[in-house]
Amino acid sequence: MEQVPGAFGTSASLALRFGQTLFSSASLLFMCFQVEFYSYTAFSYLVTVMGLVAPWSFLLALVDAYSVFIRCLTRQQRVVSIIVMGDFVLSFLSLAAASSTASVTSILHEAGPLYCPVPICSRFELSAAMAFLSWFLSFSSVLFNLWLLPSL
Amino acid sequence: MEQVPGAFGTSASLALRFGQTLFSSASLLFMCFQVEFYSYTAFSYLVTVMGLVAPWSFLLALVDAYSVFIRCLTRQQRVVSIIVMGDFVLSFLSLAAASSTASVTSILHEAGPLYCPVPICSRFELSAAMAFLSWFLSFSSVLFNLWLLPSL
Repeated sequence: MEQVPGAFGTSASLALRFGQTLFSSASLLFMCFQVEFYSYTAFSYLVTVMGLVAPWSFLLALVDAYSVFIRCLTRQQRVVSIIVMGDFVLSFLSLAAASSTASVTSILHEAGPLYCPVPICSRFELSAAMAFLSWFLSFSSVLFNLWLLPSL
Repeated sequence: MEQVPGAFGTSASLALRFGQTLFSSASLLFMCFQVEFYSYTAFSYLVTVMGLVAPWSFLLALVDAYSVFIRCLTRQQRVVSIIVMGDFVLSFLSLAAASSTASVTSILHEAGPLYCPVPICSRFELSAAMAFLSWFLSFSSVLFNLWLLPSL
């Protein structure tokens, strides 16, 4: 079997999954913690999507860690296909959520501190930035696994 | 050479490119025509991206039409790679622009008819919907061409 760096079960994949878990959790925390995010659809959407991405990435990070440190797992085509599909869908949802959040934050920022006080607004911005980073790593995982797929 | 339906130079690809040109131009027209779109960053971004997608799709539609109706073009790996890369980047930009526009329109809609009169708001919504359709077709083209790439 070809060994693609970054594909399912390698240490590079573990690093990618770790980054995804970190960034998606950070995005979730910046958005949720002591902020009334649910008055805007885009922010609720971001929270929903990041709430899906974080456990998915964490679960796959655990599987990768098992494969790297304990016992190398055999890669089955069906399993890798499911992972690619899941990553694919979540990466698109992440991109859409991140760009919606960024544009809504930009509008609130322009509307002035009455609608969006400066500390809250910068937290929204940070949350959108973290979501973009999470999307980038998630999409890298898709590409690496897609590269692996034909060799299975 | 394998014949993948929807890949560069086939009639299905011509149909996809035609749809992309149509939807991106429609999105551009709904957004630009007699509307002050440039007061919102997200709308300006949509206009920029659709202004790139429309000529790119139209150019490739012309190439596909030449290949289908006049003389079948030989597919070179480098050319198909460039097309895949271009489609890829534009499809991501389209998705980001469409979701930003949709979320900003939703906020303006909630802010009431003072900020966004009903006929204008429904045009923004239509523009976002067209951009989503354009993204969907653009991404289909990416997948078909990506499928063709290893066989070249």
